[in-house]
Amino acid sequence: MKHIRTERWEKHDRVNEHRARLLISCPDKPGIVAAVSDLLYMQGANIIESSQYTTDPTGGQFFLRIEFESAYMDQFLSVFETKMNDAATKFQMDWRLSRASQRKNMVIFASKGSHCLLELLWRWQAGDLLVNIPMVISNHEDLRESVEMLGIPFHHIPVTKDTKKEAEAKQLELVGNQADLIVLARYMQILSPEFVVTHPHSIINIHHSFLPAFVGAHPYERAYDRGVKLIGATSHYVTDELDEGPIIEQDVARVDHKDDVEDLKRIGRTIERNVLARAVTWHVEDRVIVHGNKTVVFQ
Amino acid sequence: MKHIRTERWEKHDRVNEHRARLLISCPDKPGIVAAVSDLLYMQGANIIESSQYTTDPTGGQFFLRIEFESAYMDQFLSVFETKMNDAATKFQMDWRLSRASQRKNMVIFASKGSHCLLELLWRWQAGDLLVNIPMVISNHEDLRESVEMLGIPFHHIPVTKDTKKEAEAKQLELVGNQADLIVLARYMQILSPEFVVTHPHSIINIHHSFLPAFVGAHPYERAYDRGVKLIGATSHYVTDELDEGPIIEQDVARVDHKDDVEDLKRIGRTIERNVLARAVTWHVEDRVIVHGNKTVVFQ
Amino acid sequence: MKHIRTERWEKHDRVNEHRARLLISCPDKPGIVAAVSDLLYMQGANIIESSQYTTDPTGGQFFLRIEFESAYMDQFLSVFETKMNDAATKFQMDWRLSRASQRKNMVIFASKGSHCLLELLWRWQAGDLLVNIPMVISNHEDLRESVEMLGIPFHHIPVTKDTKKEAEAKQLELVGNQADLIVLARYMQILSPEFVVTHPHSIINIHHSFLPAFVGAHPYERAYDRGVKLIGATSHYVTDELDEGPIIEQDVARVDHKDDVEDLKRIGRTIERNVLARAVTWHVEDRVIVHGNKTVVFQ
Amino acid sequence: MKHIRTERWEKHDRVNEHRARLLISCPDKPGIVAAVSDLLYMQGANIIESSQYTTDPTGGQFFLRIEFESAYMDQFLSVFETKMNDAATKFQMDWRLSRASQRKNMVIFASKGSHCLLELLWRWQAGDLLVNIPMVISNHEDLRESVEMLGIPFHHIPVTKDTKKEAEAKQLELVGNQADLIVLARYMQILSPEFVVTHPHSIINIHHSFLPAFVGAHPYERAYDRGVKLIGATSHYVTDELDEGPIIEQDVARVDHKDDVEDLKRIGRTIERNVLARAVTWHVEDRVIVHGNKTVVFQ
Repeated sequence: MKHIRTERWEKHDRVNEHRARLLISCPDKPGIVAAVSDLLYMQGANIIESSQYTTDPTGGQFFLRIEFESAYMDQFLSVFETKMNDAATKFQMDWRLSRASQRKNMVIFASKGSHCLLELLWRWQAGDLLVNIPMVISNHEDLRESVEMLGIPFHHIPVTKDTKKEAEAKQLELVGNQADLIVLARYMQILSPEFVVTHPHSIINIHHSFLPAFVGAHPYERAYDRGVKLIGATSHYVTDELDEGPIIEQDVARVDHKDDVEDLKRIGRTIERNVLARAVTWHVEDRVIVHGNKTVVFQ
Repeated sequence: MKHIRTERWEKHDRVNEHRARLLISCPDKPGIVAAVSDLLYMQGANIIESSQYTTDPTGGQFFLRIEFESAYMDQFLSVFETKMNDAATKFQMDWRLSRASQRKNMVIFASKGSHCLLELLWRWQAGDLLVNIPMVISNHEDLRESVEMLGIPFHHIPVTKDTKKEAEAKQLELVGNQADLIVLARYMQILSPEFVVTHPHSIINIHHSFLPAFVGAHPYERAYDRGVKLIGATSHYVTDELDEGPIIEQDVARVDHKDDVEDLKRIGRTIERNVLARAVTWHVEDRVIVHGNKTVVFQ
Repeated sequence: MKHIRTERWEKHDRVNEHRARLLISCPDKPGIVAAVSDLLYMQGANIIESSQYTTDPTGGQFFLRIEFESAYMDQFLSVFETKMNDAATKFQMDWRLSRASQRKNMVIFASKGSHCLLELLWRWQAGDLLVNIPMVISNHEDLRESVEMLGIPFHHIPVTKDTKKEAEAKQLELVGNQADLIVLARYMQILSPEFVVTHPHSIINIHHSFLPAFVGAHPYERAYDRGVKLIGATSHYVTDELDEGPIIEQDVARVDHKDDVEDLKRIGRTIERNVLARAVTWHVEDRVIVHGNKTVVFQ
Repeated sequence: MKHIRTERWEKHDRVNEHRARLLISCPDKPGIVAAVSDLLYMQGANIIESSQYTTDPTGGQFFLRIEFESAYMDQFLSVFETKMNDAATKFQMDWRLSRASQRKNMVIFASKGSHCLLELLWRWQAGDLLVNIPMVISNHEDLRESVEMLGIPFHHIPVTKDTKKEAEAKQLELVGNQADLIVLARYMQILSPEFVVTHPHSIINIHHSFLPAFVGAHPYERAYDRGVKLIGATSHYVTDELDEGPIIEQDVARVDHKDDVEDLKRIGRTIERNVLARAVTWHVEDRVIVHGNKTVVFQ
């Protein structure tokens, strides 16, 4: 397994070494694309992929993602930032740039259920998910072996009603500033607003329903009771309101009257795994921009 | 067009002349299938298709749908009913039998939106939906031409807040006992409990969301505001509670941040059309049994 | 119905009056986007939507679609062409520009099967498909009524093995230079290379299989014989080789052992209708660029 | 992980202890269902699930799957076989009965690619796939660790053109009569007819295309070259003709012009995993009957 990952990663690394992604959000007005593409061109960068979206060409918000290539990325970046800041001032831009070669650090929170965690680990092992995984944190011991056998540190931090505050403090201490992204892989605890605020738009959850249907606990049981003909899963950024954060990805599968709650859960596991993995991949590739309580996803 | 329908219908009619469908619901206990299949066999009927479902083999509810063939259907039926009543008493069965050759009467209610109405009319014209359509009733004039050009009577009954009671009285007078099924093809009025009770489990609605998400008005607008990545439609039997009746069929389509409310409506129209058409077809083929607030659909 | 279309069209027309789409294809090299966006900006145009794709940033082929807005489109265009030609020379560009307000002329060819024709006519009626339909040509009389009742001219040109050459001559005479697009809506004749060459990349066919499976005649029968669990439909540009042209869109639906050939055809009709309608819509919105035997579709 | 499986298995085992599945295939004629259900009823069995299909009620082939429950399964079976043989003679039935509690032995063949193997192992670990896995056989060493860490024996049997015969002999020796089912989880060798004949309708393969499109080698490369808009995977029983065996399950995923061959492979891996897992699950639950070169799948 290691060999597959190593081989695929090396291949990616060779390509990504000279690549970066620029994400911009600003009030829409004429000349933005011209200014940015000119700026890139002048510094010798070549645009590989470019996506844009405006909520309204007249007075709306404009979003831009450009993936580009430069043979001399270090040099490029040393000059680019100053020039980009000038443009940013002129157009009131929020912008960020990330090098494709800089693998993001993804910390995973899990509980007892293994399917979402293992899917992420499998895609990581297979070289399909280009991240570092500095640690897995769980409020249970069950998944330790599956994690440690891959050489990833596993931390068990139990959580009860009374110890939640301290538990979160321990979690934050462990995570430190190591996490570009925290993934809740069916982590069965609700994070406090104090925790969430430390990683804005960087905590991704998977909810086991097609939101906004069945917000909250026991969605499969409630889907069964309602007699729906499709069940779903939703991956979203965590905010202070439970299951109300910006949706990144959703999917569904067909069920019928024969399926009991256990069947829904079993069928649902496959949807949850894939929806979460797609959302995480897009985040990792800097394809998601949060806009209010919605997401712009540049696939 | 007429020729296609005539040709396809004649083909179906030749097959359906000797066919009937038996639907049974009763407390589950051993011996039901043996008793019923024996009864059919003894009268010389041949089982074409048989589906069953039990909520629980011990003390649950049992559902059975059998489609069978008899060379002498009239004779068969004259004997069968008595024998079946005996079995029904023994097993506390609810049962009904319908001849496949007896096309159901389907009355369509519509408003201004044409897509669901035209889909049903198109499938009827194409010989894919085996029903009679005695009339279309609408609270607007807009769709008159599209309906009348197919030789189907069109009745315009305006509805306002103040005239709703009288309007429903007129509708019921027109429908009389002609309707085995009433389809609300994006009919934009809520039927009163007094109306609904006249056609129990025989009024099918199409709601333009993936229920139970976005119950009530303006589901596309609310889907847009929530930033969902899939939109859906739900076909269900009408009950006294708005959008809460037993679900027959649902489906979804993928959307993204680029799609505005008008796009969602346009994409949604295709889902609505197909979901409603499938639900109606299953009802017409006696494939749906209502159980509490859920449906058993024997496809 | 007319009212719905009129209302929706007027809405579109108000938006489209000031819009145009620029499509570019050229060898990839740095500076293309900068040059084009600068050119648009200098003439006061505002980019609404922009999509690009390169087969390979180093030495590959580059594709660009820009939809833009200009308050003074006539003036804009009078200047733009010259400037654009300069850029085109520099970058060896193929390019074309089309005004969104200029509805394309779509001629439909049909035979006896109505479903694809009616779907297109319905979307046109509903204001969802923004085209003019100067005529429908058919080798049978069956669909005359359905077409003429919408005020669209219907021409019956019978085709036999012996008269094919003359029939195509008559078709071409009728079509003249009126067709920006010819849609074969289950037209059951194979067009000769002499016909195809008159409308390069402007004839769209719907094939009733998931190509390249079941090229040629009787795909549903062959799908049934092979026991596939999904059936599909494929919309593609017509070329000289049967069912081998560039694919624009495909989709599938689930079937099972119970479905006989007639069922496959019935289920398939819904897929065919929707796949063809999507492909035609994308073509009409200038979202499709042919590249070799493949398509780039900028959705 | 082990705990989850143990817990779920125990739950299943409690239910399955008293269950069995009866599969019947015979020429269709009246009275089959009556005879079989009577026979089950007389021995005190209760039907849990029953599915049937006839290719043609007049002179066709009839298929029946009944899952039933008996409080005294050992006693039941001691009597049932004799009675069933009588019925079988009368109706020319092929029939088999399997106890739900008797977990099938599934041997997995793999090569270097891990995704299909790991999916099966994951579902097995999760208690979702109720089988025993006596061994994994591979022509490469790469996956040894992933297999052995779960306590499953791993056998490396290299295969070259020249050693294929001996390699297959070794494989068959290892497998012995231990395999109710052999799954080729992206095993990159073609089994000889001599091997295939030893396990009729019990070898399941996953082919990485939507068959019959792209039979044989390099389907993703060929899908890319053809410019298809959906890619697929097909799980089928292995027969002597490459990729021509009875199809059990298929599925597809959407791709577009941006996806290169590596993307297709990555997207395809998720489809392959799920299609194979579904096909294997249905086989293990005795839901698949082979009929000619097609399958009847009673879901």
